[in-house]
Amino acid sequence: MSWRATILTLYPDMFPGPLGHSLAGRALADGTWALNAVNIRDFAADRHRTVDDTPAGGGPGMVLKADVVAAALDSVADGRPVLAMTPRGRPLTQGRVRALATSPGAIILCGRFEGFDERIFQRRAIEEVSIGDYVLSGGEMAALVVMDACVRLLPGVMGAASSGVEESHESGLLEHPHYTRPPEWEGLAIPEVLRSGDHARVARWRRAQSEADTRSRRPDLWDHHGDGRVQPPSGARQQKKEE
Amino acid sequence: MSWRATILTLYPDMFPGPLGHSLAGRALADGTWALNAVNIRDFAADRHRTVDDTPAGGGPGMVLKADVVAAALDSVADGRPVLAMTPRGRPLTQGRVRALATSPGAIILCGRFEGFDERIFQRRAIEEVSIGDYVLSGGEMAALVVMDACVRLLPGVMGAASSGVEESHESGLLEHPHYTRPPEWEGLAIPEVLRSGDHARVARWRRAQSEADTRSRRPDLWDHHGDGRVQPPSGARQQKKEE
Repeated sequence: MSWRATILTLYPDMFPGPLGHSLAGRALADGTWALNAVNIRDFAADRHRTVDDTPAGGGPGMVLKADVVAAALDSVADGRPVLAMTPRGRPLTQGRVRALATSPGAIILCGRFEGFDERIFQRRAIEEVSIGDYVLSGGEMAALVVMDACVRLLPGVMGAASSGVEESHESGLLEHPHYTRPPEWEGLAIPEVLRSGDHARVARWRRAQSEADTRSRRPDLWDHHGDGRVQPPSGARQQKKEE
Repeated sequence: MSWRATILTLYPDMFPGPLGHSLAGRALADGTWALNAVNIRDFAADRHRTVDDTPAGGGPGMVLKADVVAAALDSVADGRPVLAMTPRGRPLTQGRVRALATSPGAIILCGRFEGFDERIFQRRAIEEVSIGDYVLSGGEMAALVVMDACVRLLPGVMGAASSGVEESHESGLLEHPHYTRPPEWEGLAIPEVLRSGDHARVARWRRAQSEADTRSRRPDLWDHHGDGRVQPPSGARQQKKEE
């Protein structure tokens, strides 16, 4: 069974867009995952195909109508998790991505304008999700981000391109820096430890870099990195002291 | 002068992708902004057009070569801010988006595989930026997000579609919920205050909702919402007490 994404949007032509290329595009072509973009406008009840209306209480912009969104959603609901992309939502994490990637797929609601009539969230089981603390022109770009993050984790998609485990945010830490040939470039050498061939020393160095970079760049992550996920193995801690 | 985005990528065909549609697409067509995708591979020095190599110290994946990335970057550098999309970067904020939108544009480096040779960040002025705490298959989707967030703020792009000021993250708070017709849907009525016609009361209610939702959904934002940006006017605070 392939992973199935259904997107509810006013701009179905935006999909698959960038997901039709590279790893995700190949996986889409070979059936590892499937993508279906449904036009919310097809569920409008009037002859003008109205999907939005002015905000109750006044103000600029337009609000997506609860009745139309519900009709669109009900037409595709089948037990997969339903996400609505909105800056009011819970911040997307790699943990949530990993859980979504192991589910049968996702239904993703894309807002435009001022967003959704709030009542849709009271009457349907919808997870409000934000990809970050900035504002987009609509949920479509955010839906593409969610799908890209999920699809790369599907079995067989990354292949040898990446391990998927030794990465930023998988252990609650930023990933260590990388280097490759040439050994010297513009007067800068690759750190000696990485050319030592001593795998244990390389692993310790990378762990220490990862911790130091997380501490300095993302104190917010550092404060929480032991909360839920992988703890540094006690061996790694002991090794650090030796250096 | 239009806002100019230059993307350095191994997948130039991913652009403009979804940015060719809707508001951003119209603004691209009418010259409000310009997009140029440059293939990093065109700057490889060998006949195999090599852009990446194995990580020094071992491990899975491939690392983008500093010499090739530098050659690509140097060919387009003209004083615009240079961003590299990476989960190791500083989290994108609406404040940074707003600053980028008022600059002449941006040059955006998109990584693939395990990322960039770290030395590129020591020898070129590059801002490492992350769109969130999750991992993508490459920087292309993140570059699309940055551009979408910037383009919608360019003069004339949003028009009457949104004010751009009364939004999530512009005041350091989540935006209040929205409602629109019908007045009753599946047994739920639009809150009475929004149908009162009393603009001051509506404004107070929205502010209170915005504060309550930020406190409950995003305590991290709430803790910092007075740090740099708009403080609630003292009048608004007094009005809240009356309710």
